[in-house]
Amino acid sequence: MPREDLEKFFYPESVAIIGASTKPEKLGHIILKSLLESGYRGRIYPINPKAEEILGLKCYPSILDVPEPVDLAVIVLPAHVVPSVVEQCGKKGTKNVVVISGGFKELGGEYADAERKMVEIARKYGVRIIGPNCIGVFNADNKLDTFFQSRDRMVRPKKGPISFITQSGTFGCTMLEWAEHIGMSKFVSYGNRCDVDEADLIEYLAEDPGTKVIAVYVEGLGDARRFMEVARRVTPKKPIVMLKAGRTREGSKAAASHTGCLAGTYELYRAMFKQAGIIEAKNFEELFDIAKALALQPLPREGSIGMVTNGAGPCVMATDACVEYGLKVGGYSEETLKTLKERLPPYCVLGLAIDLTGSATSEHYAIALEALGKDPNVSLLMVFFVFQDTPLDEGIIDIMKEAKEYGKPILCCAAGGPYTIKQSRKLEEMGIPVYPTPERAVVAAKALFEYARIRKIGSL
Amino acid sequence: MPREDLEKFFYPESVAIIGASTKPEKLGHIILKSLLESGYRGRIYPINPKAEEILGLKCYPSILDVPEPVDLAVIVLPAHVVPSVVEQCGKKGTKNVVVISGGFKELGGEYADAERKMVEIARKYGVRIIGPNCIGVFNADNKLDTFFQSRDRMVRPKKGPISFITQSGTFGCTMLEWAEHIGMSKFVSYGNRCDVDEADLIEYLAEDPGTKVIAVYVEGLGDARRFMEVARRVTPKKPIVMLKAGRTREGSKAAASHTGCLAGTYELYRAMFKQAGIIEAKNFEELFDIAKALALQPLPREGSIGMVTNGAGPCVMATDACVEYGLKVGGYSEETLKTLKERLPPYCVLGLAIDLTGSATSEHYAIALEALGKDPNVSLLMVFFVFQDTPLDEGIIDIMKEAKEYGKPILCCAAGGPYTIKQSRKLEEMGIPVYPTPERAVVAAKALFEYARIRKIGSL
Repeated sequence: MPREDLEKFFYPESVAIIGASTKPEKLGHIILKSLLESGYRGRIYPINPKAEEILGLKCYPSILDVPEPVDLAVIVLPAHVVPSVVEQCGKKGTKNVVVISGGFKELGGEYADAERKMVEIARKYGVRIIGPNCIGVFNADNKLDTFFQSRDRMVRPKKGPISFITQSGTFGCTMLEWAEHIGMSKFVSYGNRCDVDEADLIEYLAEDPGTKVIAVYVEGLGDARRFMEVARRVTPKKPIVMLKAGRTREGSKAAASHTGCLAGTYELYRAMFKQAGIIEAKNFEELFDIAKALALQPLPREGSIGMVTNGAGPCVMATDACVEYGLKVGGYSEETLKTLKERLPPYCVLGLAIDLTGSATSEHYAIALEALGKDPNVSLLMVFFVFQDTPLDEGIIDIMKEAKEYGKPILCCAAGGPYTIKQSRKLEEMGIPVYPTPERAVVAAKALFEYARIRKIGSL
Repeated sequence: MPREDLEKFFYPESVAIIGASTKPEKLGHIILKSLLESGYRGRIYPINPKAEEILGLKCYPSILDVPEPVDLAVIVLPAHVVPSVVEQCGKKGTKNVVVISGGFKELGGEYADAERKMVEIARKYGVRIIGPNCIGVFNADNKLDTFFQSRDRMVRPKKGPISFITQSGTFGCTMLEWAEHIGMSKFVSYGNRCDVDEADLIEYLAEDPGTKVIAVYVEGLGDARRFMEVARRVTPKKPIVMLKAGRTREGSKAAASHTGCLAGTYELYRAMFKQAGIIEAKNFEELFDIAKALALQPLPREGSIGMVTNGAGPCVMATDACVEYGLKVGGYSEETLKTLKERLPPYCVLGLAIDLTGSATSEHYAIALEALGKDPNVSLLMVFFVFQDTPLDEGIIDIMKEAKEYGKPILCCAAGGPYTIKQSRKLEEMGIPVYPTPERAVVAAKALFEYARIRKIGSL
């Protein structure tokens, strides 16, 4: 059952920006400007009792003065006036409200009281709230966004397979930009989580056809029981990757003054995640790296990781990381080794990794990838590049495209300057993820194997 | 005592490229071309018995035919002919040889024998060898490099404080490009390490005035006893950061087929590093991150980390990481808190981090940085930016420049797309390192505290 009451957060036909400002430096101005420039085609109503017109749009004194129905209200006003504005939204029949403003529960005391009061009012009118203390929503489908990050400061991602829900707007901004060319479906920064919570959002995204993987940053959970119930239901169908902040007592304290959340015991969370089939990321890079792999690659069978490279150092470190994570490397079949020995130059090293050395051409890669691609012992291809090595010709991109035909997941590793970034981008744009360090590629591989197991158990 | 016998690896007046080729795709062509384009002003002699001229330079049949002295020979020829060519270098009086070619110890058996034979010959003539199986040397001082990575594939770094010695050419390429705008002094990729080893190189770099921090990637050590003796002598004066690959049995096996090194027991290495005052990096990103901090920032007194941000999520994760690494956060003086309460807007959160919120301007950062900069409890400033947040004006760069005046180390954290990268670059160009994740900033902070302690003990 999709969360129908959340639909208008992502697909409103009309949006009111309550607190829209004439002053360019104000959040209420930036949000309106950004939405106008977004390509979103719904109606937009600036609300401000002191202005006639903002950015060429007629301005209304309150949402109640808007002559047509308003599906979504975005509130960016000082905290103390927000509850009464939520009440106006309720009266107007606007059931979906994003509260950008901070100054609530994260400050404690009377501010937390104001947040509670706001929720009470919302419940009375059947209004759902995302926030407060957040940057709101983004939907790549219709280009809607509620961000106070201007377009020249923050790139919006193309439409794609990752959805991200986050208590931290900061990590939100980073993910939006890192995912630029991988693409995103839906994005929600929900800050203090006074009402709409991760369980609601995951339930919604589970039914979103554009979402292939759900990435989550939380400091603490709202309704843990419902969260578990929803997650358990979703993970056999769509992967959930989660980053949990506030692992330590001091971190929890920091979380409390960020989103007013009690972070809870980390070990308890880990156990819960495991039980619910959630993949845990240990830091933000891991969260992105794992989401990228799950979004772009097929799942592996049980088996070994086959490595191909033109520079062996990173394979040594990758092997260390694989062993430490309990992943197998090498174990190539006799036939594979025979083929490689026959077809590759004699200076190539056929060890745990197939080291084509710095003299490697794309043709050498093609030979190695074909052998490993057909080797029944190999279930995942990890391909390392020193793109800087000049013998490696441009044909490598097409060779990698062909390597997808073996049907095995492929993860690449390459790091360097502008040329390497350009080549890596080409690979990612054709759906092959590239990681800058061997450890990060191995973490992604581990997640693919882990989710393959979760999927298997879930489908029993 | 500087290693005078190594001087000509970095400051030769003349270089012979033995195995220079007329064919553009050959390593021996790329190395010559790259050196010609480098800006290096010494004499360059291509050696190839089958060519009259390569890239406009007169070509000699052998190094013995060059009419003038040759300080440095770079050999890029099939392995089996290299020993006899080293002998010619000895006869010529060329005491410094870089062997780029692979196909030696890393293949085992007779190939390892060839490497041994080559070393015997070198010893006989007093020739020192870097390599084989490597990409050789780079000196930012005179622009010399021996790389087969063309300039359009691999950017060379500007002159700067990091020197890097590495058994892996791949990690070498990455470091050269990552350090582009931080800058490098000397670089050595030494592959199989048949002769010149890490102890020799560290001893040399200890006396190199351009080197402020020595970064090292090793799979196994050559002469561990001498290494320890040298490292113990150097670390009280210059920091050494090391990444050790081949931590696991399988990783060691991978190392053996990479550089022919026995990787040894990881725990033993860790104990040795600790005893010698070496800072250990756990992966390649850490190696670079730590080197960057040590290269650019002053050392902290004992004390607490002060955090300032306009988006608190990363501070929660940074706090977790600090606690896990035994670093203190916050603990601001009464006076600091009083000042901040008076001077900052009321919605700012004065917790473990000073959270200026998404509405922060550079003026708010200035207020917070001044208070923390003068707070006697704070010994390191960790400054987080959501550069995407549009209220944060361009003045922030100057504010950060002024913050250096407090004399405390500053580490920043910011991650995102083009605008964020541009702002981060500006900070790094004025000597303030920026990290993409809180954990990476915290690892750098930990290393600064660690090296401050090493320095203290060393100077007793």
